[in-house]
Amino acid sequence: MDQRLERIKLTALQERIVSAEQAASWIKDGMAVGLSGFTRAGDAKAVPNALVKRAHEEPFQIDVYTGASLGSGIDGRFAQAGIVRKRAPYQSDSLMRSAINSGKVQFVDHHLSQTAEWVRGGVAGPLDFAIIEALGITQDGLLIPTTSVGNSMVFAHHAKQIIIEINTAQLLELEGLHDCYEPQAVGSRQPIPLVSPRDRIGTKGISVDTSKVKGIVWNDQADSPSPIEPPDAETDIMAGHLLAFLRGEVQAGRLNQNLPPLQSGVGSVANAVLHGLLDSEFEGLELYSEVLQDAVFDLLDSGKALFASGSAITLSQPYMERIYQNFGRYRDRLVLRPQEISNHPEIIRRLGLVSINTALEFDLYGNVNSTHVSGTKMMNGIGGSGDFGRNAQLAIFVTKSTAKNGRISCIVPFASHIDHTEHDVDVLVTEHGFADIRNLAPRERAERILANCVHPEYRPQLQDYFNRAIAQGGHTPHVLDEALSWHAKYMRDGTMLKKSP
Amino acid sequence: MDQRLERIKLTALQERIVSAEQAASWIKDGMAVGLSGFTRAGDAKAVPNALVKRAHEEPFQIDVYTGASLGSGIDGRFAQAGIVRKRAPYQSDSLMRSAINSGKVQFVDHHLSQTAEWVRGGVAGPLDFAIIEALGITQDGLLIPTTSVGNSMVFAHHAKQIIIEINTAQLLELEGLHDCYEPQAVGSRQPIPLVSPRDRIGTKGISVDTSKVKGIVWNDQADSPSPIEPPDAETDIMAGHLLAFLRGEVQAGRLNQNLPPLQSGVGSVANAVLHGLLDSEFEGLELYSEVLQDAVFDLLDSGKALFASGSAITLSQPYMERIYQNFGRYRDRLVLRPQEISNHPEIIRRLGLVSINTALEFDLYGNVNSTHVSGTKMMNGIGGSGDFGRNAQLAIFVTKSTAKNGRISCIVPFASHIDHTEHDVDVLVTEHGFADIRNLAPRERAERILANCVHPEYRPQLQDYFNRAIAQGGHTPHVLDEALSWHAKYMRDGTMLKKSP
Repeated sequence: MDQRLERIKLTALQERIVSAEQAASWIKDGMAVGLSGFTRAGDAKAVPNALVKRAHEEPFQIDVYTGASLGSGIDGRFAQAGIVRKRAPYQSDSLMRSAINSGKVQFVDHHLSQTAEWVRGGVAGPLDFAIIEALGITQDGLLIPTTSVGNSMVFAHHAKQIIIEINTAQLLELEGLHDCYEPQAVGSRQPIPLVSPRDRIGTKGISVDTSKVKGIVWNDQADSPSPIEPPDAETDIMAGHLLAFLRGEVQAGRLNQNLPPLQSGVGSVANAVLHGLLDSEFEGLELYSEVLQDAVFDLLDSGKALFASGSAITLSQPYMERIYQNFGRYRDRLVLRPQEISNHPEIIRRLGLVSINTALEFDLYGNVNSTHVSGTKMMNGIGGSGDFGRNAQLAIFVTKSTAKNGRISCIVPFASHIDHTEHDVDVLVTEHGFADIRNLAPRERAERILANCVHPEYRPQLQDYFNRAIAQGGHTPHVLDEALSWHAKYMRDGTMLKKSP
Repeated sequence: MDQRLERIKLTALQERIVSAEQAASWIKDGMAVGLSGFTRAGDAKAVPNALVKRAHEEPFQIDVYTGASLGSGIDGRFAQAGIVRKRAPYQSDSLMRSAINSGKVQFVDHHLSQTAEWVRGGVAGPLDFAIIEALGITQDGLLIPTTSVGNSMVFAHHAKQIIIEINTAQLLELEGLHDCYEPQAVGSRQPIPLVSPRDRIGTKGISVDTSKVKGIVWNDQADSPSPIEPPDAETDIMAGHLLAFLRGEVQAGRLNQNLPPLQSGVGSVANAVLHGLLDSEFEGLELYSEVLQDAVFDLLDSGKALFASGSAITLSQPYMERIYQNFGRYRDRLVLRPQEISNHPEIIRRLGLVSINTALEFDLYGNVNSTHVSGTKMMNGIGGSGDFGRNAQLAIFVTKSTAKNGRISCIVPFASHIDHTEHDVDVLVTEHGFADIRNLAPRERAERILANCVHPEYRPQLQDYFNRAIAQGGHTPHVLDEALSWHAKYMRDGTMLKKSP
């Protein structure tokens, strides 16, 4: 007997095994599909790759919903094959990005906690297929997710049909890690009964209507590793500024020594800043985050962090090897949840999170751009930064003060795209310091940002802008003709820096 | 005996009665005070007026926190007297507005649900005094609020000392209307147990530590009426478009015939649009809103609406007379809550609200400006529009397509200030139609907004901008040099309209 069949404990389903090619053949032009996968973790791999192959034979286009970004080069191959019409709610692939920015793919950049509401409410879709990676299927028909939960539960519950990819390359010890909970339909919804990052409120797998399972596909391809970069001298300094801020809050009696649960956004800078907690005096930490990246496991190893809740585990290659070879060490200190629970405003506000996310740029008054290069070109998407930033006790945004070897200032007169408004941003951190802009009027914020965050090379020209703006008056002073001129200058001259007179 | 003393049933407090002038003398330079009052309803009146009088004798400045806007001309007199250093979280007075826009008053424009968190968490304040209007004080020391709850509960709980204004001009029948609930401190917070607009989860008044009550002041000044304008031909048309949209949602099976609980923002346009439901087929409506304005009472009168939850009752003069003379008719169908509960994201998401708020302007891609005229001058503040818009099932923003007799287009290439980002806006309504922009990419949104919302006089020039922006590419195409040029042109030429060639 094929040993793999032991993964399908509900034996009636064993006869639904098909090849990836056959499963892919069911996806027709114009369909909407929901794929498992959240920041490279637990993405469906076999059927998407078979879809790309099929595209060489016949033209078709589909709408693709996921948890967050896919790994395994899938978004890139989707884009090259030209088979995606609409893509939501997040991606981070360079080829997909190009297709989005050229208008070939219609990308819906959506708060990660909210896509589930649209699927459940009939705004996104109706989904024709959910394609979900699983470790296996229990006797009572629960799909056990792998390294992410993402939107898999809502996709499986609300799609017309389901294709399951059982991935034998994923660690069997992942079983028991997940806590699967879906809120009731609007109109009869109860409070979500979660009051601590450690709480389990759901089931260990995703319940499915087995009559909807059209096929099961084998897969033995591991998740692709995260390209995350290790901390560097500048991110160490930024981490130091963040720690100084947190220390001040403890001293002022506004935070306890063991801090509220922490959230840290995807990417190298947020990971590096979180890493800084390793060498701090803070103890007994808990994480209530979306992606559990490398730094989380260092914090668990050191004993600094006691528990971590997320929606996905996304690791660099060396961490992948280390963590998954010793997964028993971590298993009882982790839980993975659907992204609408990991990112739910109800929970974020209740737990009083400290939330740390990466900005592309921010402006004099604290408006943050997380998504658009020069206001027009999509980078990845807003992800969970809005879910967390809006309702966290502390919404902290971090970025280096310049990019492109100093040719771009990440602090500008007017953010060229706004994902987090002045109303939602509490603290800004660059390598030059932190600006605590809570409970300040716009002019007060500008002074603090100028003093603490801006690169010294850009400070004179930003101060000059601010002075001339104030002369024109207003609650949020601007020289409208110049507000976006730094970006225009960069596109024209290759630098935002004005020559000194 | 002074009949008024019957209002103070906890008799030990009767000896703390002082004059407004004496109470005002306790407020020292540099103090922070929290005043009751939400959109002209239930504002402290006697002590603020005495403070203004004192300003003629000695200079001082204080920080003033409220629920939302004050009535009774208080903000204006505060501004004239120059006694306010910081003002939060909302105002709507022309003199205060001027002081804010000239930089004399530091205004913190804050989501109305969040100020309570800042007060409780020690970010705003510490408050030296809470000055709270009440109907009376019960035997067990509950302050009974009047026409609003606003932030009164959190102010009374967390200020060092309390001054109570007992207002004998307010209707005694208001007692029993309020449901006072304060979430636990972060770290030990439980779910808010509210699952229907009708639920009562707190106490009928605000519990106070009586040792903090420094004085009680008599007051007999009524709330000032709302200057709300009645519906006109254009708002009737806008209401028609909104109804058409809602009808479509019912037909598509995404909403039930009796609709989810409704929220409607402050102001004439939102009130008028809500008024449109009177002549519709929708029945059995419930409101879960912040300010209950005139239209809510018409809906209750007609039997269309069965229940309304809010944080304040704010009526025009004729409605004030009509409603308060027959208040018994409405009493069992109303509840007033603290604004952090009426506007709480946990509840808004749970109930799946349909939220209708007014925009000052919006842009091609659905970003909404609710606060700043020409990007720089504060109008009133964001109020609750962000609390509701972000988490409502449907975030609807309404505005006439032009202002100033057509010299301003309210749909522009790039919003000159952004309070609600593209991620948060579902439906836009003007007198020309509605644009349902859910689950659309930016370019798709622009096409729908151009077709359905823009005034025909401005359509060619906005289409021309969009065409040239697309030619430059990008996910959210822009011509950065021109993005804010319409506003600059208005300031220069007095109109945004370009002459036809």
